[in-house]
Amino acid sequence: MTEPETRRVPLLCRPEGECWYGEGEVVILDRRRLPDEVVYHRCADYEAVARAIEAMVIQGAGALAMAAGYGLALALWSVRDAPVERQGAVLREAAERLRRTRPTGVHLFTTLEELTGVAEAALASGEPAWQAVRDRVDALMAERIEIARRTGENAAALLPDGVRVLTHCFAGPALPFMLHAALEGGKRVEVTTTETRPYLQGARLTAFAIREMGLPVTIITDGMVAFAIQRGLVDVLVTAADRIAMDGSVANKVGTYGAALAAHRHGLPFYVLGYRGPDRKTATGAEITIEMRDPREVLEFRGQRVAAPGADALYPAFDVTPPDLVSALVFARGVYRPAELGRFYTETGTAGAGAVD
Amino acid sequence: MTEPETRRVPLLCRPEGECWYGEGEVVILDRRRLPDEVVYHRCADYEAVARAIEAMVIQGAGALAMAAGYGLALALWSVRDAPVERQGAVLREAAERLRRTRPTGVHLFTTLEELTGVAEAALASGEPAWQAVRDRVDALMAERIEIARRTGENAAALLPDGVRVLTHCFAGPALPFMLHAALEGGKRVEVTTTETRPYLQGARLTAFAIREMGLPVTIITDGMVAFAIQRGLVDVLVTAADRIAMDGSVANKVGTYGAALAAHRHGLPFYVLGYRGPDRKTATGAEITIEMRDPREVLEFRGQRVAAPGADALYPAFDVTPPDLVSALVFARGVYRPAELGRFYTETGTAGAGAVD
Repeated sequence: MTEPETRRVPLLCRPEGECWYGEGEVVILDRRRLPDEVVYHRCADYEAVARAIEAMVIQGAGALAMAAGYGLALALWSVRDAPVERQGAVLREAAERLRRTRPTGVHLFTTLEELTGVAEAALASGEPAWQAVRDRVDALMAERIEIARRTGENAAALLPDGVRVLTHCFAGPALPFMLHAALEGGKRVEVTTTETRPYLQGARLTAFAIREMGLPVTIITDGMVAFAIQRGLVDVLVTAADRIAMDGSVANKVGTYGAALAAHRHGLPFYVLGYRGPDRKTATGAEITIEMRDPREVLEFRGQRVAAPGADALYPAFDVTPPDLVSALVFARGVYRPAELGRFYTETGTAGAGAVD
Repeated sequence: MTEPETRRVPLLCRPEGECWYGEGEVVILDRRRLPDEVVYHRCADYEAVARAIEAMVIQGAGALAMAAGYGLALALWSVRDAPVERQGAVLREAAERLRRTRPTGVHLFTTLEELTGVAEAALASGEPAWQAVRDRVDALMAERIEIARRTGENAAALLPDGVRVLTHCFAGPALPFMLHAALEGGKRVEVTTTETRPYLQGARLTAFAIREMGLPVTIITDGMVAFAIQRGLVDVLVTAADRIAMDGSVANKVGTYGAALAAHRHGLPFYVLGYRGPDRKTATGAEITIEMRDPREVLEFRGQRVAAPGADALYPAFDVTPPDLVSALVFARGVYRPAELGRFYTETGTAGAGAVD
């Protein structure tokens, strides 16, 4: 018997699976077109970046914050030869525009805040602000991947050999890193994912990444989660979070709460891939704003109307799972039970960004 | 203020919303094409009827049993001038073929059994067997509609004024009849339905029927049920059942169990439209066979593949909700708590068909 070859790290765990800065443009992998094709969306100005974020060309709290950061660099690049005052004005305009794109994840806000500080310092010292911002986002990207890798490794340590993982939506690079670490550790793993209507991130992105790793993956509709758990087809629920409150409440793709209820009923653990940490500014789940998106996305399927004429729809992008349904929050720094989050920021004094990815 | 006009009884509550027998053919409303178009699927022989049932041209335990019954009449019509032995042989062949179409609902089996008896009696007495079977199915259709109407009226009596109903899949004619009775009784009602992947019965059929009644309807994806309940957007969960066991377990469209878990968590009642009664031959939910359908239906959307290449899928058509999550079972005969079902057949001695619709 030969050792399994080292598994390929999937595209969605690499920078070219999200976005990068090219001089004069921001290039974003168009997640909406996956898995049919790997297409890059090129943005020539920050408004195009903002619209790409709104249109979900890029998705996931951490990933879209990076795109917004590169958008800020692009805005500064477009006025790189202008007086400092003009650059400062464009900086504020662009940061404000990019901040308005998505309301739920905090990483967008904290990243833009940090980068505004970087740009202001550069402008004050006469350095090229666009370059300072781009370099910082490049560093954040590398850090994010490192955080995803460590988060995935910490989660893998919780999984027994032969585990059958159920996931929902696309949990970001920490999920493939978790599987990668489990496989490297000699554990067998199987994955079932919901399709995750209306955007089908599970059927498209999660399944795509897992197939890239050479693992089998089974897709179920969002309504089949409780069935799969009841019938003993899965052993553990693992999702990401768009925001984790300090009480351990988890905002994540709508459907997560229902999955957590079913897992709880049948005694399955629910592990949340929390990346960098909980949001220290959000005390409880009740404080989390749920983004209500365009109802047409529910009434349509890939642009084709499927619902009866005259029907309305709701599209909450996220739901909030209360902490009693969460078994463990898995961060790059370690594994916490919800009740232990109170000491996340105090025990080491780390100035965490307070964002999950 | 004027009285509201009497609401139209929707197409899906009338025989022409399901199927009928025309001499030499069975005509079935193609539910897969609703709400885009009202198209009738014409079957020239019983094999075509069987295939239409398998292909979900007609859906719902009661409705498809009627189509199978007319299919049996058609089989007998095709050999109406043949010797009695030949007619008997075709009767057995056709009943066996039609019985194999769908495994979960019992109404298919009991109806075919009853009609086989009707046909045998007609053959023995020299009457036209096809006509005897057709007449019986016509009578069963009329009885079904009456049962749906009484079930709906009993359910309406449980609803307070201003109630916001959440439903899943298409609960058959009893749901529009329930809304109709509530409206006639001067109660205001709002409806939210899941879209019900993969076949979208909620977005297509339920929404279609409710819009026909002139009521607003809001569609959510299957993953949004727990969110809608958690946020207080709905007051009661109402679904049908494909089979009700004598312990009060409810087999219904996959997704019902998850919805019931969420309703239970937040103290919402869950009422099940049980039509004729529980299945006296099924003691517990564990005895219910769950039909596993073609996984392609999950991997595709209206015939177009949406999932990542190489991904597999599961498609359980139903799940089983345990009785502790069911507030009341609503039959044409009355309202029962799950624990009261033991006396359903003993208290009046009624020879119920033991089917839910």
